[in-house]
Amino acid sequence: MIGRLNHVAIAVPDIDKAAAVYRDTLGADISDKVPQPDHGVNTVFINLPNTKIELLEPLGEGSPINKFLERNADGGIHHICYEVDDIIAARDKLVENGARILGSGEPKIGAHGKPVLFLHPKDFNGALVELEQA
Amino acid sequence: MIGRLNHVAIAVPDIDKAAAVYRDTLGADISDKVPQPDHGVNTVFINLPNTKIELLEPLGEGSPINKFLERNADGGIHHICYEVDDIIAARDKLVENGARILGSGEPKIGAHGKPVLFLHPKDFNGALVELEQA
Repeated sequence: MIGRLNHVAIAVPDIDKAAAVYRDTLGADISDKVPQPDHGVNTVFINLPNTKIELLEPLGEGSPINKFLERNADGGIHHICYEVDDIIAARDKLVENGARILGSGEPKIGAHGKPVLFLHPKDFNGALVELEQA
Repeated sequence: MIGRLNHVAIAVPDIDKAAAVYRDTLGADISDKVPQPDHGVNTVFINLPNTKIELLEPLGEGSPINKFLERNADGGIHHICYEVDDIIAARDKLVENGARILGSGEPKIGAHGKPVLFLHPKDFNGALVELEQA
């Protein structure tokens, strides 16, 4: 069912500083900072030859990554995102297998303009997993 | 400097259970379990079209992932591994930029039989980063 690894997301307290680490210390190709007010984050993409890293910084009140950053003050690896062909079919198969979907259980439009779902970390080895319809 | 994302490692308390989640619930192609006594872990690889996920379970006394699992009883995303062409050149550039290398600072032969280094999470946004000479 799962296809490509779409991205690994790293939540950080200061995205400009984090982006500079990737650009200057690790010599990576990075995007400009993109505010995503609907998702409560600023994003910077690190473009690797086979996938990307998504840096996330809280934006506005009640950002969904605030709690994670309270527990991980330096930042940390927040989630991994796998691509699926059909997110509704994927969701139905997961629910049938007893896996829990976060939120309403209905896909939302994610930061890349495509339908996404988040899966309960307790059902996936403690890792927060996002599915994105490719 | 950094190239492909070689793998994302997920540390788990029970690798057979974790591998079954990826095989049965997420429908992924998984490898057999490989004991890596030199590294204190059992490994299972999840083969994705563009990269791989490495499941890690403690093996023997004093496994390097024991502490992580004490803090994260369900498991969690443990590290990300980027490929570099020349690990000594990469190491020297990182040190020049003030980044800290874990351990002796000299590359060791990693779980894939290639030279690797681990970088200090405090210098990389709270994320544990492995570099592997591709």
